[in-house]
Amino acid sequence: MTTNREWVLAERPAGEPDLDCFDLQETEVPDPNPGELLVRTRFLSVDPYMRGRMRDAESYAEPWDVGDVLRGGIVGEVVESASDAYDAGDLVTGEGTWGDYAALDADEVTPVDPAVADPKAYLGVLGMPGRTAYFGLLEVGEPKPGDTVVVSGAAGAVGSVVGQIAKRNGCRVVGFAGSDEKTSWLTDDLGFDAAINYKTTDDYRGALESAAPDGVDVYFDNVGGPITDAVFTRLNLDARVAVCGQIAHYNDEEVPTGPRKLPQIIAPRARVQGLLVSDFASRFGEASERLGKWVASGELEHRETVVEGLENAPDAFLGLFAGDNIGKQVVRVSSPAE
Amino acid sequence: MTTNREWVLAERPAGEPDLDCFDLQETEVPDPNPGELLVRTRFLSVDPYMRGRMRDAESYAEPWDVGDVLRGGIVGEVVESASDAYDAGDLVTGEGTWGDYAALDADEVTPVDPAVADPKAYLGVLGMPGRTAYFGLLEVGEPKPGDTVVVSGAAGAVGSVVGQIAKRNGCRVVGFAGSDEKTSWLTDDLGFDAAINYKTTDDYRGALESAAPDGVDVYFDNVGGPITDAVFTRLNLDARVAVCGQIAHYNDEEVPTGPRKLPQIIAPRARVQGLLVSDFASRFGEASERLGKWVASGELEHRETVVEGLENAPDAFLGLFAGDNIGKQVVRVSSPAE
Repeated sequence: MTTNREWVLAERPAGEPDLDCFDLQETEVPDPNPGELLVRTRFLSVDPYMRGRMRDAESYAEPWDVGDVLRGGIVGEVVESASDAYDAGDLVTGEGTWGDYAALDADEVTPVDPAVADPKAYLGVLGMPGRTAYFGLLEVGEPKPGDTVVVSGAAGAVGSVVGQIAKRNGCRVVGFAGSDEKTSWLTDDLGFDAAINYKTTDDYRGALESAAPDGVDVYFDNVGGPITDAVFTRLNLDARVAVCGQIAHYNDEEVPTGPRKLPQIIAPRARVQGLLVSDFASRFGEASERLGKWVASGELEHRETVVEGLENAPDAFLGLFAGDNIGKQVVRVSSPAE
Repeated sequence: MTTNREWVLAERPAGEPDLDCFDLQETEVPDPNPGELLVRTRFLSVDPYMRGRMRDAESYAEPWDVGDVLRGGIVGEVVESASDAYDAGDLVTGEGTWGDYAALDADEVTPVDPAVADPKAYLGVLGMPGRTAYFGLLEVGEPKPGDTVVVSGAAGAVGSVVGQIAKRNGCRVVGFAGSDEKTSWLTDDLGFDAAINYKTTDDYRGALESAAPDGVDVYFDNVGGPITDAVFTRLNLDARVAVCGQIAHYNDEEVPTGPRKLPQIIAPRARVQGLLVSDFASRFGEASERLGKWVASGELEHRETVVEGLENAPDAFLGLFAGDNIGKQVVRVSSPAE
């Protein structure tokens, strides 16, 4: 068996992270303990929330220390099994490392079925982002038929699923995204009613008045910043805001300032709620079953942006903040034929 | 019957209102139509939300036009009845005018029982502010025994009731108020566990760390501004924020800015919700019954600050923004013996 390579946190980023924050180290391929699987990574997920783990501050996800191996969702092939539950050759998904190989507890992975979708989709629409969209929209956003649902980061892994589920529920759906290629994907392929390219639009509020003329009933926010400021001026009575991400602010070193929103939510009696998918863990089976069915039938579109090679994982991560990805950003670490 | 006097909106305030915004006019004492009561005002309520009605902007309460008679909650004595429901001499409460007399629809007033409390309490603890506290805390704040509940504007008409109901529900209660007299009232008479004088404290966050060492489970916000900024840094998992008022911002001419709060509510999955008491109108009977019982038994303390004379009603209103009131601010317009 070859050596393993793993990315570690070389230094904590100050503001925007760069490649100096990452160091690729040669390590040993682990031996699986009883109950564990040795998994060779096929695809690694990079996600905006990882920026928070690079900070020296307690939050929902434990902070990484300098020198720690970076972790994240992976899809991989079992190369050695010390568990009755899986055999060598099985494809699984779970939390692994930014590395070639990882030993994972068999109880903490789930099977990947290539008949349902390409394995990398298990890091996106069929993984944590898809479940975040599913529960965040349905349980926090509570869309009703006829509602106008606005999504920021709409062409991302979460937002693209949010919009499609909202359409299934009979809503008018408006997305903010950062390129014409993205907005075209939203309206032409995913069925969004309107999409706003926030990089070529100055007047977000004006754009919303056209795209969401009846106001906003549900806002699913992945971004924050000026997009969110505009949406808050258009909230309808009893509006619901699901705050899933605030990527515009993840690299801020100081607490960011902006228009105060509490004075804006009294008249519409809006409900603004922070969202973490782990709160719905007891219902992940329900989400996986429904999302899998929609994906397999082609009713739910998905896309992944692939960066090739473990050595480019930091670039893939940094690209999230530049909006390089359409759909889910993954890193291809190995291929079946290798 | 004497002439009537009524305050009208003389001009819209720009920023902080002043006496030039108000004009006291002599008008006719109205004749009650069938179903109406002619009511002589005993007490008039001035409330922060009225500032919003002076603005030329649609909101939950219709804006007043320049020249309009100002309206508000009153307690008064029926001097002439064109309804079977009330007789001359009855005390009632309802929405009247900033005036000596008003004709009110008998269906839209409720009786005042001086055996339960002094009539002016029907504009505070037994009126709209008390019901706001009751539904806002219980239905939006959802306090559980052992929770830490923080209240801004804690010595006001709403906040003082919020804190006492939270204590009844087994919570630790911390209030922000603007004078030592107010904080003493909260801790010595109302049973608050701690109170912070925000006018003599620089470090609100530090004061909260001492007063609410286990963090904040429920925040009932009447004020906004730096107090609210500090509380948002201390929200616990699943915290609830009831946004009842934002008096610190009512005189702002531009949209106020401050620390962004959406990034702060993801980790605690906090729920932040705008609150208007009118949404609970179908349950006002329940609130009145319970609040009346607690007041009559002395379990629920209340206080009113009285400004004497209809001619001083604008001063009473302006005093709200300076924090002149302890408990409910009312104006005495007439007395029984007059």
